[in-house]
Amino acid sequence: MTRPAQQSVTIVDVAKAAGVSKSTAGRALTGAGEVSARTREKVARVAAELGYRPNGVARSMITGNTETVGVVIPDMSNRFFSAALQSIARTIRQHGYELLVSSTEGEPTLERRSVEVLATKRVDGLIVAPVGGADTHHLRQLAESGTALVLLDRPAPKITGASFVSVNNIEASRLAVNHLIGLGHRHIGIISEARYDAASAGDAVPAPTVDRPSTLRLAGYVRAMADAGLTVRPEHVAHSAYSSTASYAATRRLLQTTPRVTAIYCTDNVLSVGAFAALQDSGRRCPQEVSLIGFDDHEWAPLVRPRLTVVAQPTEDIGVTAAEDLLAAIADPTREPATRLLPARLITRDSTASPDHPG
Amino acid sequence: MTRPAQQSVTIVDVAKAAGVSKSTAGRALTGAGEVSARTREKVARVAAELGYRPNGVARSMITGNTETVGVVIPDMSNRFFSAALQSIARTIRQHGYELLVSSTEGEPTLERRSVEVLATKRVDGLIVAPVGGADTHHLRQLAESGTALVLLDRPAPKITGASFVSVNNIEASRLAVNHLIGLGHRHIGIISEARYDAASAGDAVPAPTVDRPSTLRLAGYVRAMADAGLTVRPEHVAHSAYSSTASYAATRRLLQTTPRVTAIYCTDNVLSVGAFAALQDSGRRCPQEVSLIGFDDHEWAPLVRPRLTVVAQPTEDIGVTAAEDLLAAIADPTREPATRLLPARLITRDSTASPDHPG
Repeated sequence: MTRPAQQSVTIVDVAKAAGVSKSTAGRALTGAGEVSARTREKVARVAAELGYRPNGVARSMITGNTETVGVVIPDMSNRFFSAALQSIARTIRQHGYELLVSSTEGEPTLERRSVEVLATKRVDGLIVAPVGGADTHHLRQLAESGTALVLLDRPAPKITGASFVSVNNIEASRLAVNHLIGLGHRHIGIISEARYDAASAGDAVPAPTVDRPSTLRLAGYVRAMADAGLTVRPEHVAHSAYSSTASYAATRRLLQTTPRVTAIYCTDNVLSVGAFAALQDSGRRCPQEVSLIGFDDHEWAPLVRPRLTVVAQPTEDIGVTAAEDLLAAIADPTREPATRLLPARLITRDSTASPDHPG
Repeated sequence: MTRPAQQSVTIVDVAKAAGVSKSTAGRALTGAGEVSARTREKVARVAAELGYRPNGVARSMITGNTETVGVVIPDMSNRFFSAALQSIARTIRQHGYELLVSSTEGEPTLERRSVEVLATKRVDGLIVAPVGGADTHHLRQLAESGTALVLLDRPAPKITGASFVSVNNIEASRLAVNHLIGLGHRHIGIISEARYDAASAGDAVPAPTVDRPSTLRLAGYVRAMADAGLTVRPEHVAHSAYSSTASYAATRRLLQTTPRVTAIYCTDNVLSVGAFAALQDSGRRCPQEVSLIGFDDHEWAPLVRPRLTVVAQPTEDIGVTAAEDLLAAIADPTREPATRLLPARLITRDSTASPDHPG
């Protein structure tokens, strides 16, 4: 069977079948304007019989409100974002809103386009996890046009009209590194998307509303080491691109070139897959010879052996907080934007132990 | 800083600043109707300076085309759906379309609402992975109204105007079960969302365009066993709800109550997490005492020990095929809908071995 050619029941069809004028049918169906109860019932019945579907586009033109919010994220297959999405969806639905999601695959041009499409669809608000980079013009324009905007997980510098919700990345790293220091580790490696600049590390004061999560997590590592009187060695900071393959290579290299490292902190959930596999394949026993801490509590963390110790983000809380802030901003455009940094949690399993572990 | 009250630059503002009438500004910006090149340039420049954003809602009213397609899926955190989404997004973007996604969390009422919202936003087409159940009225109505519709992964009976794209679930199960039979297994358990009805198993001829994936995967197991002359024992079919916790319990129970089972085939990626954990915790050695095959090639499958053998869906192909079919249906509403069942692939790792394995 072929689909019928593009044609849907219009309000003219409903009006004709109900024996009323088009404007009367419109008033009866929208509830805008005077019409008798009897006519209203008749028009509603005829509309249902014909399968009339109100034109949301036309209705939005009149009400100026679409009861939809948009979410723009870089990667739908990343567990953090997909879990945050679920809790955003749940929260906004409880308030009668529907969610439209767009993924940017980490591409600034796709992000601009996603924001543009959702803005031209007149969503009532947007939650965006920005790709990052210097060009935030599209976000600034959006915020200045009065569309409610919440930034999720990653800040966009110079956007003053938007709230920001994220885990406290510096504290998350402190939790991980202090756990390792407490076990007796002194030579602690880190797998990071950020690059370490030894020259400026002492001066830089990274800010959650300016710097990327990877930069903040590296800064938290540097501070925790310094606070414990330990030296941060540039060769212990392994840079990795955003993929498990890159992280695998970076971890293998770190293990080969810095045999004194007895513990590794991996600062991202995608990178943790590669880091774990690399440690498995290295022939070094975990945790007897090398301890490992991952980021985010993946479904596989308790399945692997040794079970993986992780720093877990409060993913559900982050989603709920972002959604609630957005709904509040939609309801009150004069509301002050807020920065909300939620605490991480250390989940201790079997992949971390004392470096003097008897094995 | 507070956000400014909801107000955006309108075409009236642009017309005033450019010193032309509103209708001239409209013609200059949309390209519809006559206007001098000099005026067009001036209006475009002024519009850019003011940050004028064309009203997509109003434009859609005129063109009848929104260059957006919607995708409705039951679970964004399911790896199969998030991976299919990525390839759908990539494909439709190559054709100038943008993607809006909505998740139903497996709830029929949320599915109806998602479809309704996307339809009233006048998306040009929809890809839906239906929750299932008897009520497919909203999908039938959509297909009959002429909106291009492709069903993904799960069929919706009685919808004749839509294409259907899925893995060949019966063949996927045959691959898994025949692999186990080839290794010498005779007592093969299965973890399934579907329930086994021994009385009607011989008669039932499950159809990919009618039955759910779980029903088809169970049917493929039954057929492969029968074809090899092996008896399907009802106690070897362990029912599990759609969660890794339920699957954990079902697998533990299966291992305890049917000690003769030397191999287990788990028919879903969420269930595979629980099945693997249950086998680990049971004290039975894998694969020496019990072999295990999972469904879908999860990121953790090669990380766990033993590495997990799986039946992998061609997730990316499924997404591309669904997207291309939808685009073709949008371009030609008289196009015949098609059923596309793509082949699965067995990835043999270390969790399957002969039951006579020396151990």
